[in-house]
Amino acid sequence: MKKVEQLYEGKAKKVYSTEDPNVVIVSYKDDATAFDGLKKGTITGKGAINNQMTNFLMQQLEKAGVPTHFVQELSERETAVKKVSIVPLEVIVRNISAGHFASNYGVKEGIVFDEPTIEFSYKNDDLHDPLINSYHAVALKLATWDEIALIKKYAFQVNDFLKKTLLECGVTLVDFKLEFGKTADGTIVLADEISPDTCRFWDAKTGEKLDKDRFRRDLGNVEGAYQEMARRLMGK
Amino acid sequence: MKKVEQLYEGKAKKVYSTEDPNVVIVSYKDDATAFDGLKKGTITGKGAINNQMTNFLMQQLEKAGVPTHFVQELSERETAVKKVSIVPLEVIVRNISAGHFASNYGVKEGIVFDEPTIEFSYKNDDLHDPLINSYHAVALKLATWDEIALIKKYAFQVNDFLKKTLLECGVTLVDFKLEFGKTADGTIVLADEISPDTCRFWDAKTGEKLDKDRFRRDLGNVEGAYQEMARRLMGK
Ligand SMILES: Nc1ncnc2c1ncn2[C@@H]1O[C@H](COP(=O)(O)OP(=O)(O)O)[C@@H](O)[C@H]1O
Ligand SMILES: Nc1ncnc2c1ncn2[C@@H]1O[C@H](COP(=O)(O)OP(=O)(O)O)[C@@H](O)[C@H]1O
Ligand SMILES: [Mg+2]
Ligand SMILES: [Mg+2]
Repeated sequence: MKKVEQLYEGKAKKVYSTEDPNVVIVSYKDDATAFDGLKKGTITGKGAINNQMTNFLMQQLEKAGVPTHFVQELSERETAVKKVSIVPLEVIVRNISAGHFASNYGVKEGIVFDEPTIEFSYKNDDLHDPLINSYHAVALKLATWDEIALIKKYAFQVNDFLKKTLLECGVTLVDFKLEFGKTADGTIVLADEISPDTCRFWDAKTGEKLDKDRFRRDLGNVEGAYQEMARRLMGK
Repeated sequence: MKKVEQLYEGKAKKVYSTEDPNVVIVSYKDDATAFDGLKKGTITGKGAINNQMTNFLMQQLEKAGVPTHFVQELSERETAVKKVSIVPLEVIVRNISAGHFASNYGVKEGIVFDEPTIEFSYKNDDLHDPLINSYHAVALKLATWDEIALIKKYAFQVNDFLKKTLLECGVTLVDFKLEFGKTADGTIVLADEISPDTCRFWDAKTGEKLDKDRFRRDLGNVEGAYQEMARRLMGK
């Protein structure tokens, strides 16, 4: 599988076409951004970790019944995935209050919810990814009711799987962001990545943050946290 | 029924206790505010119109199966209502894109939706009434799932009734905000008001705005629009 042409350069990854019109290659960068792109930096080794962690988790999610875009890991940083048209909704699942949830609703971080919550942000950089609900998403034709029902079901399945898997590694899953896409034949699959860039991971004993919040909040040892998560989850 | 003590002064109304612990008196003011309280003004005669229009509509809604807080109109501006504890969710139903929906999601005003949308804002002045979804509202214990289901059902019933009633007066119902409350025995009832302050009304033929947007956007003839709505709906 070879890269033909760069289709898109995002904040954390590049996407390339291949000779197969249904397959693209995702190449993970060490670039990090936060606060709607205002804060920029580099997290050395992040690209390789995020690539491998995403693939490790997606392969297990497939077995657990969640269809994903994963096709084949090509190198440390590069993976062939099914080309999808991304549903323009960032899907956020929360088990514990943190981040924007805590600041927007005036509550402290660390409140454990009785049941997980799900929310959508309209994936639109110009509009700053505003919170959107299912009715609005359907009214704007971003997705159909059936697609939203499927996306919710998959997102909660991902949560159940991740929570359990991480707990076995001594990590509490606080919240995470997913993206879904539609393949050429209209199938909804989990796309994008699952990594310390897109999840909040807290050490189950100490509460220490093991994710991008170390970068966002200048907590130091950012690389170390990514490496620690790779070690705990994948033993490397 | 007599006012005993002022319990609350809001932006558009005052609330008084009565000798009956389950009844309060709402007194409608001519004061108008917009943009989170930043813009202030007076709309002469608004209090009387909003009071009478709210009562006119709530009495018909009761007959149509939506329980309301209405007890008895006491004067032009004052009404006895069941005392409720307000569910801290502003319930917004939209038939056509306008206002914050249009600006937040980058679409023009006037898009007619295939089906009405519903959304909640967390009624909290300090937090500027942020958009919130049902999962968040339940996680924050603002309402239970059962209460939310009932509130949604009632809100869509109000929309069906209002849309039809207004169309007969040559008015298009664009969107509106409701508040619900719980009476002493835990019953959910429609509370607060239904008026040109809380709805967007467009003349069905000309598209002319007949609501508080005339005040928000300095369109002139604000009093005239309120009077016109009173005339069309109640013949006075
Ligand atoms: N399977 C896929 N097919 C096509 N695009 C994808 C796929 N998976 C993820 N993407 C998109 O590729 C881009 C990945 O780059 P990233 O740096 O994360 O972008 P962004 O800055 O938009 O978050 C994202 O826009 C993401 O939605
Ligand atoms: N039946 C009721 N019982 C108690 N409070 C009510 C009832 N109906 C409405 N309210 C509350 O009374 C206040 C009315 O005043 P208003 O000027 O609209 O206030 P605000 O500035 O908070 O919008 C609101 O806070 C509203 O939630
Ligand atoms: Mg991304
Ligand atoms: Mg009010």
